[in-house]
Amino acid sequence: MLTTHISLAHGNGGRFMRELIDDVFLRRLANPSLDVYADAVRLSLDQPGDLMFTTDGFIVQPLEFPGGNIGSLAVHGTVNDLAVAGAAPLYLSLNCFIEEGTEITQLERIIDSLARAAQESGVRVAAGDTKVLPRGHGGGIYLATTGIGLRRKGLELGMSRIRSGDTVLVSGSVGDHGIAVMLAREQFGLKGELQSDSASVLPFTEVLLDLPGLRFMRDPTRGGLATVACEITRSSGLGVRLRQQDIPIRDPVQSVCDMLGYDPLYLASEGRVVAVVAGEDAAQALTAWQALPRGSDAAVIGQIDGASRHVVLETALGGERLLEELEDDPLPRIC
Amino acid sequence: MLTTHISLAHGNGGRFMRELIDDVFLRRLANPSLDVYADAVRLSLDQPGDLMFTTDGFIVQPLEFPGGNIGSLAVHGTVNDLAVAGAAPLYLSLNCFIEEGTEITQLERIIDSLARAAQESGVRVAAGDTKVLPRGHGGGIYLATTGIGLRRKGLELGMSRIRSGDTVLVSGSVGDHGIAVMLAREQFGLKGELQSDSASVLPFTEVLLDLPGLRFMRDPTRGGLATVACEITRSSGLGVRLRQQDIPIRDPVQSVCDMLGYDPLYLASEGRVVAVVAGEDAAQALTAWQALPRGSDAAVIGQIDGASRHVVLETALGGERLLEELEDDPLPRIC
Repeated sequence: MLTTHISLAHGNGGRFMRELIDDVFLRRLANPSLDVYADAVRLSLDQPGDLMFTTDGFIVQPLEFPGGNIGSLAVHGTVNDLAVAGAAPLYLSLNCFIEEGTEITQLERIIDSLARAAQESGVRVAAGDTKVLPRGHGGGIYLATTGIGLRRKGLELGMSRIRSGDTVLVSGSVGDHGIAVMLAREQFGLKGELQSDSASVLPFTEVLLDLPGLRFMRDPTRGGLATVACEITRSSGLGVRLRQQDIPIRDPVQSVCDMLGYDPLYLASEGRVVAVVAGEDAAQALTAWQALPRGSDAAVIGQIDGASRHVVLETALGGERLLEELEDDPLPRIC
Repeated sequence: MLTTHISLAHGNGGRFMRELIDDVFLRRLANPSLDVYADAVRLSLDQPGDLMFTTDGFIVQPLEFPGGNIGSLAVHGTVNDLAVAGAAPLYLSLNCFIEEGTEITQLERIIDSLARAAQESGVRVAAGDTKVLPRGHGGGIYLATTGIGLRRKGLELGMSRIRSGDTVLVSGSVGDHGIAVMLAREQFGLKGELQSDSASVLPFTEVLLDLPGLRFMRDPTRGGLATVACEITRSSGLGVRLRQQDIPIRDPVQSVCDMLGYDPLYLASEGRVVAVVAGEDAAQALTAWQALPRGSDAAVIGQIDGASRHVVLETALGGERLLEELEDDPLPRIC
């Protein structure tokens, strides 16, 4: 009964909306926790642990890009925020803001990806809502996901645990997502085979949780690796020293950055983790990461430096460069 | 340091964004559960009970209307979905999609209302995210809220509990919100003093929870009272008989509907409850509601009729009218 494009009637709470929910969403996202006709659903939490909560919005343009789309991204983004906080993600809520005129086949592809990402990440979409925006009042599709997870009792992670001398690691190459989305826009006439790194980082966070010296983890999304380092410095008052030659950056990412004047350290990744661990645990953390399927590029990239209050990049040429907090967005709408 | 209008730089994850978060959001929403710089926050659940979960998106136009704005509405909508499920709302997440060019003073008014509504409803905003949409890619402000609440163990409410002979009640006049928003658009050249009914319905749901014959509650938002009745019939297979003359409708709502050809039974309320209770508990439910500050218009409005599979309105003139499921939206973007 669905037409080929989203109309305002799909958002009115009546029959068209019910058919959209059934045909597009429910068929793909059905699970024992989801009841699209209930006002609120009961979540079962079978294990003990601390309840963890996070939310994120997604406005990426274009909606589909090599390596993913806004649907998989909306799952990975929120799953990863739980994962880097040390939690196991369990449930998501999903808000869709869909512009009138959106092709329903495109919406279906996006919700397919979203469902697959949720399944791979071990989370259930337990609550959802859809609103239709009049033509011209939206960018196709905006999504928001809120996540609930469980963290083992007593596990404390955070910037306040970081100490001078700690080691900084990254789980893979940086900036792939930012450049993949940028190339997908075709605004520069560039084409590449680069894929977004968008993925669940749960395998990477789980293998570090038993390390006594694990201080802090974060996924370097909007603002990239440099922004994570700046936040560490601002929050902890400790400097961060990064070694440029140790930071994994793929050749096509570096090439595009060189050509267009971007700094890959400020570009988003959507499937990487930056971790700070006590120096004595660094080797074990690196070994654990490199043993993972997507972990071959994991690297130790720097140290926490209590003698400074800045983020310093030791360049490949032996110089030093201060990495400052971002003022302008190099690539807007990458997530 | 804020400028007067939202710019794309407020969405880039850097300094402008941090200042926006601090100056507009954190100052108004600060509470012990909120840590805007954490990837995920820990929620404390001190009481026993079932964890309840719900989400809703908000695209109302205009953003501000008599009796509320999109901020208070976004709290009430999600609080009410938890409340009608029998839960006590505890935590919210908040997603803001803000269009470039939005006046920051307007955003501040909206977040002020949101903060006040959260406080009045007893919920804390524990997680949030803000995205900035390029000019022309948004309708000013879109919000999404996801709510977590606790429901006493063993409490079961739902359409499946409804039985023939049960009584249908409404906690107050219907359609106020829909008409208030419509008048605020001024597109019809009409002006009125009517206020939206947008409010937390928690006082109304709480006083019914001890009734053994409480079957089901719902807030008649998008699609109004008639849509709730249609959903009961579709889900339970039982008919619903409503008495037109017993349904509370304010004079200005009825007047505007008569003038413009709307049916108030399909217009949204944002602070009312429709409840289905066993016949023997109806008088007690009504008395409890009418004793509440906003409960003077509460009324018994109909019965569940197992002999029919339709929603039938007994008109004031003694006739009968079938209330069908909504096909077209009489008033889009009222929530």
